[in-house]
Amino acid sequence: MIERAVHRRVRTIAEDRTHGASELARICLHMGADFALREPVRDSAELHDVLGQLAAAMTAARPSMAPLYNLLNRWTERLAQLPGMELDAARQAAAAAAREVAEESVRAMGEAARHASGLIGAGRTVMTHSLSSTVREVFRLLKDGGVRAIVSESRPLCEGYALTDQLSEWGIPTVLITDAQLGLFVKQADLVLVGADAILEDGAAVNKAGTYLLALAARDQGVPFYVCCESFKRRSAGMGPLELEEMGTEEIGAPEQPHVTVRNVYFDVTPRRLITGWINEHGLDGGAH
Amino acid sequence: MIERAVHRRVRTIAEDRTHGASELARICLHMGADFALREPVRDSAELHDVLGQLAAAMTAARPSMAPLYNLLNRWTERLAQLPGMELDAARQAAAAAAREVAEESVRAMGEAARHASGLIGAGRTVMTHSLSSTVREVFRLLKDGGVRAIVSESRPLCEGYALTDQLSEWGIPTVLITDAQLGLFVKQADLVLVGADAILEDGAAVNKAGTYLLALAARDQGVPFYVCCESFKRRSAGMGPLELEEMGTEEIGAPEQPHVTVRNVYFDVTPRRLITGWINEHGLDGGAH
Repeated sequence: MIERAVHRRVRTIAEDRTHGASELARICLHMGADFALREPVRDSAELHDVLGQLAAAMTAARPSMAPLYNLLNRWTERLAQLPGMELDAARQAAAAAAREVAEESVRAMGEAARHASGLIGAGRTVMTHSLSSTVREVFRLLKDGGVRAIVSESRPLCEGYALTDQLSEWGIPTVLITDAQLGLFVKQADLVLVGADAILEDGAAVNKAGTYLLALAARDQGVPFYVCCESFKRRSAGMGPLELEEMGTEEIGAPEQPHVTVRNVYFDVTPRRLITGWINEHGLDGGAH
Repeated sequence: MIERAVHRRVRTIAEDRTHGASELARICLHMGADFALREPVRDSAELHDVLGQLAAAMTAARPSMAPLYNLLNRWTERLAQLPGMELDAARQAAAAAAREVAEESVRAMGEAARHASGLIGAGRTVMTHSLSSTVREVFRLLKDGGVRAIVSESRPLCEGYALTDQLSEWGIPTVLITDAQLGLFVKQADLVLVGADAILEDGAAVNKAGTYLLALAARDQGVPFYVCCESFKRRSAGMGPLELEEMGTEEIGAPEQPHVTVRNVYFDVTPRRLITGWINEHGLDGGAH
């Protein structure tokens, strides 16, 4: 029963294609709060154990996404107090802790976006790839300052369209291109700004496939390349080796052909040397140039 | 009447999305031969004039594609003999000249592919982008030697699928990826081999958008990057400034949104410094490294 309840939630997280890593981590936390309040358990010790199992399973479901590891870890650390409490009080405490960690994450995202928008200033053309909630927030902060956007569709599921939909609503003049045109348009940008699903210990950025190509083109054409994300995105040694998630090939829509293997690796790694700077909730952290 | 006949053929060329530059140039020549044999004209002088108009209009319809300029020029140079001939003999001579130029082009393509397959040798993994008839011929020559392929879909119209269809028929083990994954897979290739729609006077290659990104990733990861195409692909000063064709945005399939401009530039330019070597009908021409 409890296993089914865990499994159902973990599947939702594993199959999610519409949220970035931080948003998904917050969804996990809200699911955790809901789980803590509702699911039948004997006592606060069992509650502690099943919440730990839920958090571990959610983290394992999206190994490329450091915020799940970091935020769910931060939450489960606070759950150490549960055993020994009255069950109802333990439920409330677990849910409150989940909400607080989610709120910390939202604040950090907002601060990172605020630093990025200050750094960029008014009237600039910003190019991005894929859909990052932090980058979207940067555009919101800059929308009345004459910002312009260049956005790639980001195959296979084209979440770039969701970003242009939002930019369109804000009245931001936007150019939408295929991923193959990234190298043709980067010169028209004053800077590139991308989010990240994780930052490696050496400063490399894990983000949607194609980000590395954009970083290469930006470097080749002298356009600064910034990564904007909260420090919750940092991978730590405890997370084990980096695994780049691969999704179902039906997302690509290619014909099935004998001898042909379709691949759908979702993330690539942009090395530190291609990154001009990282922007997190504490401000700008300078990079390789 | 004649204008309509010219216009109909030129529109076919302008709207073509399935053929590479050399194949399309040969289609132009075969259309020219057919035109010379069938269309009503008064005499051989008028035939000479309208064939010149047809060739000029076809060339102008695809300004990114050097072979149209070069092969149609080669044909129209041979048409100088027409005025003064009997009309029927002039028709036959014009058609024969078109066929001969097309055959020269086919021979050059075959020779370039033969040189490339010799350079590559057996048992290698070759990565390519877009659909080049020359590269396809290289795979045909290598198909019994244990060659493997990595092919990108090449948005917007995904002509990569047509290439994998052919490779599948030949039983060549092939990996098919989105353009966004070019940087993730280049390291698995022994070399990159692409065709070109044109080679600039300085050695840069004009090819389907995304080729420049693949060349950057190949250089960054130490994988040799070769361009294989006949010398008919060379642009000359007479062609005027390079124009990168842009096609209709309906090909992209993005939603229409206010303030959002969809762009569909078909070609990009890979600079000479990223090209390991050019292979044409005379063999390998070494490059920047």
